Amino acid sequence: MNELNWNAINAGLPRWMEEARGIAPLGKVASYIPELSKADPEALGFHILAADGKSLSAGDCGQRFTMQSISKVFTLMLALMDNGEERVFSKVGMEPTGDSFNSMLKLELVQPGIPFNPLINAGAIVISSLIAGSSNEEKSERIAAFLGRLAGGGPLELDEATYRSESSSGHLNRSMAYFLTDNGVLESAVEDVLEVYFKHCSLLVDCGQLARMALVLSLDGLDPVSGERLIPRRFVQIAKTFMVTCGMYNGSGEFAIDVGLPAKSGVSGGILALLPGRAGIGVVGPSLNRHGNSIAGVHLLETLSKEFDWSLF
Amino acid sequence: MNELNWNAINAGLPRWMEEARGIAPLGKVASYIPELSKADPEALGFHILAADGKSLSAGDCGQRFTMQSISKVFTLMLALMDNGEERVFSKVGMEPTGDSFNSMLKLELVQPGIPFNPLINAGAIVISSLIAGSSNEEKSERIAAFLGRLAGGGPLELDEATYRSESSSGHLNRSMAYFLTDNGVLESAVEDVLEVYFKHCSLLVDCGQLARMALVLSLDGLDPVSGERLIPRRFVQIAKTFMVTCGMYNGSGEFAIDVGLPAKSGVSGGILALLPGRAGIGVVGPSLNRHGNSIAGVHLLETLSKEFDWSLF
Amino acid sequence: MNELNWNAINAGLPRWMEEARGIAPLGKVASYIPELSKADPEALGFHILAADGKSLSAGDCGQRFTMQSISKVFTLMLALMDNGEERVFSKVGMEPTGDSFNSMLKLELVQPGIPFNPLINAGAIVISSLIAGSSNEEKSERIAAFLGRLAGGGPLELDEATYRSESSSGHLNRSMAYFLTDNGVLESAVEDVLEVYFKHCSLLVDCGQLARMALVLSLDGLDPVSGERLIPRRFVQIAKTFMVTCGMYNGSGEFAIDVGLPAKSGVSGGILALLPGRAGIGVVGPSLNRHGNSIAGVHLLETLSKEFDWSLF
Amino acid sequence: MNELNWNAINAGLPRWMEEARGIAPLGKVASYIPELSKADPEALGFHILAADGKSLSAGDCGQRFTMQSISKVFTLMLALMDNGEERVFSKVGMEPTGDSFNSMLKLELVQPGIPFNPLINAGAIVISSLIAGSSNEEKSERIAAFLGRLAGGGPLELDEATYRSESSSGHLNRSMAYFLTDNGVLESAVEDVLEVYFKHCSLLVDCGQLARMALVLSLDGLDPVSGERLIPRRFVQIAKTFMVTCGMYNGSGEFAIDVGLPAKSGVSGGILALLPGRAGIGVVGPSLNRHGNSIAGVHLLETLSKEFDWSLF
Repeated sequence: MNELNWNAINAGLPRWMEEARGIAPLGKVASYIPELSKADPEALGFHILAADGKSLSAGDCGQRFTMQSISKVFTLMLALMDNGEERVFSKVGMEPTGDSFNSMLKLELVQPGIPFNPLINAGAIVISSLIAGSSNEEKSERIAAFLGRLAGGGPLELDEATYRSESSSGHLNRSMAYFLTDNGVLESAVEDVLEVYFKHCSLLVDCGQLARMALVLSLDGLDPVSGERLIPRRFVQIAKTFMVTCGMYNGSGEFAIDVGLPAKSGVSGGILALLPGRAGIGVVGPSLNRHGNSIAGVHLLETLSKEFDWSLF
Repeated sequence: MNELNWNAINAGLPRWMEEARGIAPLGKVASYIPELSKADPEALGFHILAADGKSLSAGDCGQRFTMQSISKVFTLMLALMDNGEERVFSKVGMEPTGDSFNSMLKLELVQPGIPFNPLINAGAIVISSLIAGSSNEEKSERIAAFLGRLAGGGPLELDEATYRSESSSGHLNRSMAYFLTDNGVLESAVEDVLEVYFKHCSLLVDCGQLARMALVLSLDGLDPVSGERLIPRRFVQIAKTFMVTCGMYNGSGEFAIDVGLPAKSGVSGGILALLPGRAGIGVVGPSLNRHGNSIAGVHLLETLSKEFDWSLF
Repeated sequence: MNELNWNAINAGLPRWMEEARGIAPLGKVASYIPELSKADPEALGFHILAADGKSLSAGDCGQRFTMQSISKVFTLMLALMDNGEERVFSKVGMEPTGDSFNSMLKLELVQPGIPFNPLINAGAIVISSLIAGSSNEEKSERIAAFLGRLAGGGPLELDEATYRSESSSGHLNRSMAYFLTDNGVLESAVEDVLEVYFKHCSLLVDCGQLARMALVLSLDGLDPVSGERLIPRRFVQIAKTFMVTCGMYNGSGEFAIDVGLPAKSGVSGGILALLPGRAGIGVVGPSLNRHGNSIAGVHLLETLSKEFDWSLF
Repeated sequence: MNELNWNAINAGLPRWMEEARGIAPLGKVASYIPELSKADPEALGFHILAADGKSLSAGDCGQRFTMQSISKVFTLMLALMDNGEERVFSKVGMEPTGDSFNSMLKLELVQPGIPFNPLINAGAIVISSLIAGSSNEEKSERIAAFLGRLAGGGPLELDEATYRSESSSGHLNRSMAYFLTDNGVLESAVEDVLEVYFKHCSLLVDCGQLARMALVLSLDGLDPVSGERLIPRRFVQIAKTFMVTCGMYNGSGEFAIDVGLPAKSGVSGGILALLPGRAGIGVVGPSLNRHGNSIAGVHLLETLSKEFDWSLF
């Protein structure tokens, strides 16, 4: 495993950030809830953290944002730890899908009605229903604590305003949840599941925390400081595979070709990416491309991957 | 990059082959044309060829079979060499899709009507139309020569009977081709394109040749003996990425999790797989699982990947 | 307009009822809620009421059943009276559809996301949202009073147990309602609309009442006794047209060919049919065919239509 | 059955024609083949022929045009006469569908892959394969003779240029035909079936001939002059029912509500309509609305139907 070329990254980063920021105006900030639409479209933050503790950050790294879909990678692993592979994959499939992130069409066509994979909304809702806990509060606290632990600290904080907005405007997610209930896939009450789901999407992080969480994945589930096993290696492997095949909505195939790293994006503009065995990366840039991924963030990762030959492929 | 553990592979292989062969009766041989249905369902062949020239083969490696969908990976690279990325990806998408290999449904739903990716049938037909040549014969000869060169010899031989059967029974492919023509995606005459397409699916190989072709991909396009560049690295990278995200029909996601290697299967029971930088693998086992992949072949690759920790993820 | 041949109907009816009852075992009673599954599969009731007041009834006419989808024809007319044609048809289409009664697929494919017609579930839910009233109670009371008036008496009675079962098991209808809300088609809160919807599906009638309601439609909206106009003729015409093109779920085309009368069925086994200008018919037979229509009821109507040449076509 | 009010029709027609012609510019002429695009968008012809031989014509009745989809009603009846109901409806369904005339999507979703009804393109192609005859020529001659006989004369003439254009540009129809072959629905060779299909779409008629053909249908299959039975009554009934439920592409529901007569349109701008027991109507107006129906023709029929209360409903 090669050392990262810190000097070269350090030297080039200002220019690459500048370039990436330059294309931000070609995208647009998510606007379906007020909390997301307030984000600065020109913002761009980048943080990389290596296994040996070295790190480097640039741009708007101070600002916090909600995890949105990035949280789905982690609730998947927690659900696997809570239920085992067999039960989880009886409720959700393993196949990538080229559809946009909110299509119900696909859902209906899969027999016997289970979502294609755990990273599309329908699949992530099913995963939320599989988190252990005796109440919605306990489930949400377990998720916040798990994510916070990977990020190197206490439980992540909830953005209440975002949660309330997501919940009150989430008609399509409600529609999917009732459809899943009708198919017998969702066993808990819809509103209970959605509370857990909308809350983990509304947890706050910054780029440094994303990088720290990604680093744990790059180390196959080990804590980078203590060496303690936080997640079984097999479940990290599963999560990384889904990140490669469907982590970037219906831009996943293109991202795999152009960047070639396991990654997961969210509509708040965050991207978590990782260099297996070497480093974790957190990026944020709220202006989104047509697939719902940070337009500047993807561009920056593509530049770095090509410059330093990071692609797995 | 670690050396392969030849001793351990050699020692375990007989048992793993036996186990894999044991589940062959759970699948079934493709039967849509007589030539495929004649294959021995219990057959299983395996060949691995390393970058340093070492190799090992086991089982029914002497028998030849038609490449079928495995050829699509190579016509994609040839089309990229003939046309460049921009033109190719204006005609075919980059996104994986969880649908079965012959669904027309997806085709219609993608705007503006281009196939999701170059490995589904519709996409591979478009790719066939992009192979350079002044006649169908010249195009077919260029493909056979290109594939033969990667396999370390002269042009691959055509299985005439298979070609004729495929062509006369290929109603669904014809239907797709006319649909693509109606959408303005296919520019040549349907029967011309299909001749080229059905012929490259009907080229004969054995496991050793598949392994040799895979080795070139694992070396990013370099000839393993002469070191000569046979394919631009970027195009190999594109092909390997598609192999990971959609190389195993709608069992690709599961294969990525359980095996984690770039691979491509065909309905004749062949599988081409590769260990980046290290080795190429050819497998054949005509009994297919529900996704259309060799049931024994997938099982054998899964065993080896887990035993020797081969997964990229 | 010919007189009905009462003698011949009277003479043949016992035999035709017997024949129709004989095929009831080929169907099955709706079982998604306990209240429906309790119905006697062998029951068959028939009532015909002519414009001149003559009537004839046979079989199990005493029993009451819930209107289910039959109510959709009448809420459509009430919504038209409350809102006018333009507003109603900006929210719901006019086209028949061969899909089964609960498919969401079609819903998604129609631009800009309005239901195909007012008789499929999604369309009927939209119609429920268009009933005038300052509260859910007032809306439900207006519907019960309107239907009761057409049936020749006071407000129809609600079957509370059926309503509660429908509401608690109506996941797919909830899913559709949220989908419609997301599309901007449904303007009231989902649970409010569904209360009105499930309640009008749970109103109780008997065959005689169905025949009386059908007679009003056959008279283009006039009260058969007082001659008073209860519904504008144009709205009755619209309703009758939908009954012909999509009144019998995805068995509508076959019913139009084999019976040729405007009709609407419900999963409780009721069928309302009419002979324009001449008579109204109510039938009930809880055993359903694969399209969700009373198997004995359809058979009986087909026999009568062929015997007396009742088809409009 | 009321007499037609000839005086009122005669008196109002010039004004109603003028009005209808006035909206022609809102539509557009079919342009997928040169032969259709040459038609005068402002043309409008109308011919009505009553059972007693009285007739009236107005506007551009001299011009001839190809039957296009109007021919499908008649090939359906001929196929029924050649094969019987059971065989025909094992190959094609009876259900209306709200989809546009060329959607393949629906085709794929119907189990086991038969077209929804005989008037959509896929269904009409199946019907063409069921016409009796020992050669393509004989089949085409039988159709031309049958249609000509209904029109009161010798075989209809083929428009060779239109036929050749349709055939050479008919990629979507070819695609559907191969799809149907793959599903086992089409038993003859695709090109043979399509020759018959494209030829009957390219038969030439004028408004007077359409009206004469419609009159035979309005008389349930009897020759209006000789009284001879040309088509079994049951098959005419079937045809008329399909005309009501799906004769006007995906504008059928709207047409049923606004006009309420059995009718069939073609992309050349022709419409055949009928008043049961009373009269046949032929209309032509090449400018089409968004459903593919003559925009002026539909308007004129709506005016007449409302003025004289012609609706069946």
